Amino acid sequence: MSTSSQPLSPSNFRDLFDSVEAFLFDCDGVIWKGDELIQGVSQTLQMLRSKGKKLVFVTNNSWKSRSQYAQKFQSLGISVSQDEIFSSSFAAAMYLKAKDFPSQNKVYVIGGEGILEELRLADITAFGGPEDANKTIDLKQNCFVEHDKSVGAVVVGIDPNINYYKLQYGTLCIRENPGCLFIATNRDAVGHMTALQEWPGAGCMVAAICGSTQKEPVVVGKPSTFMMEFLLKKFNVSCSKMCMVGDRLDTDILFGQNAGCKTLLVLSGVTTQSALQDPSNNIQPDYYTNTISDMLDLSRA
Amino acid sequence: MSTSSQPLSPSNFRDLFDSVEAFLFDCDGVIWKGDELIQGVSQTLQMLRSKGKKLVFVTNNSWKSRSQYAQKFQSLGISVSQDEIFSSSFAAAMYLKAKDFPSQNKVYVIGGEGILEELRLADITAFGGPEDANKTIDLKQNCFVEHDKSVGAVVVGIDPNINYYKLQYGTLCIRENPGCLFIATNRDAVGHMTALQEWPGAGCMVAAICGSTQKEPVVVGKPSTFMMEFLLKKFNVSCSKMCMVGDRLDTDILFGQNAGCKTLLVLSGVTTQSALQDPSNNIQPDYYTNTISDMLDLSRA
Repeated sequence: MSTSSQPLSPSNFRDLFDSVEAFLFDCDGVIWKGDELIQGVSQTLQMLRSKGKKLVFVTNNSWKSRSQYAQKFQSLGISVSQDEIFSSSFAAAMYLKAKDFPSQNKVYVIGGEGILEELRLADITAFGGPEDANKTIDLKQNCFVEHDKSVGAVVVGIDPNINYYKLQYGTLCIRENPGCLFIATNRDAVGHMTALQEWPGAGCMVAAICGSTQKEPVVVGKPSTFMMEFLLKKFNVSCSKMCMVGDRLDTDILFGQNAGCKTLLVLSGVTTQSALQDPSNNIQPDYYTNTISDMLDLSRA
Repeated sequence: MSTSSQPLSPSNFRDLFDSVEAFLFDCDGVIWKGDELIQGVSQTLQMLRSKGKKLVFVTNNSWKSRSQYAQKFQSLGISVSQDEIFSSSFAAAMYLKAKDFPSQNKVYVIGGEGILEELRLADITAFGGPEDANKTIDLKQNCFVEHDKSVGAVVVGIDPNINYYKLQYGTLCIRENPGCLFIATNRDAVGHMTALQEWPGAGCMVAAICGSTQKEPVVVGKPSTFMMEFLLKKFNVSCSKMCMVGDRLDTDILFGQNAGCKTLLVLSGVTTQSALQDPSNNIQPDYYTNTISDMLDLSRA
């Protein structure tokens, strides 16, 4: 089914630019790497806004909440409103809302403060996350983790403070609480948590819980299109007039394709041109280019 | 293909007993639960020895080495020689020996001291395990884990001290060192690490590394029959004259069946009679009974 992608060029860029009303950007590997802005991003986003394009930032990284991401943009000198940000932490909260998660039930979180904040904003009681970072387990004979029977969902995202206590707590809730949901913010294998190297992503923690529970999660982040209905409501743009811009084939580009958007792969993140063109790869974006700042150069051409 | 199992009875027990020269026992859930001996085990093993049966203890728990398991048996009042014990920690070392693991290469271990000890006894250089238990990661921008390029294998077993440093280190070796092997001691989802409850097993840590590397491991413990060739050499008994006794369908019983042994499920561990008889279960042992001490009662009948 896949036809091979075209490199972004002066002629096809004009077609893309004219037909698209909203650009959806992944953040890590597209806007920044770790805490460093990718060159030319600020001017590129300004140019797009000045031409009347809508901008949306869709990130699978659940470590932060939308407001924390808005602060991060601010600290990097880019002004983005919280309403333009769709993080997988927010998606997890919206999923539970959409499922009418009972108000007497609680959520156990393996992941960051961002998930807890988004759940609080959605009036859902949650615990775990950072507060369990330093819990240790000494497997003596009388060692026993007592879990809360009112936990009705376990949300798992990236967690650099993963430990055996959290794994046991989440496993007990999913295995022993009838009907307990298992929600993954995303399943990215690795990500640029720091500028210098890639680190295990949420896919690592999610797989760990799959391994101990022998259950599969509901994924709310990319490539699941769960977030798309919220995007459509808010921006009132049809999917065919959106372009998803990302650095990952199996999340960003697949998400864009699943939703019926145009897709642009940037090579500033985890995907190399040779990986894109490898015969084993069957996910082909419409276009690819080095970084989003190429759009700035092409718009001036 | 599966026919349903028979409960052990005076008549079929006699057939089984007469046709079997060696009994292979799983340990956790069969001999003990955590650090507590299951009732009647000591007398049952004595009876089998007195009737000339060979005894072998085949455990997927890689936390301990064979000598550490022999000490555990001793501390529970049972005399077992190290040569009668086949642990998945030993299997990992034997697998690398069988593959002529180059002497200039090293092994990184996610797991317990038992794996390191078995690797040392096989003259293989290994590191990681307990020495990395307290390593922490602070994801600042300059944070970087440098890994040893001479690591040629990562061995993953149960590790209650699992942390993000270990996950990153193992992931880097597997992703970046050409030809680096990924070996799982076993993939048990959960196990009775303490008498009071089940805890995530090696299957949890192994899945985590699968999640971050997007690779599948070689499994050396049950249900893989890798250990069987060592068993056959040492005991000189044909598989059809062996009976595998265990509490898990997907490891112990499958292992016995894969090897062509007779199989006996005991209900003293993780498998209930209703799970055995559930239509979704397609692994049927030849026989089942409550605990191995039923063999003692039946031998007197």
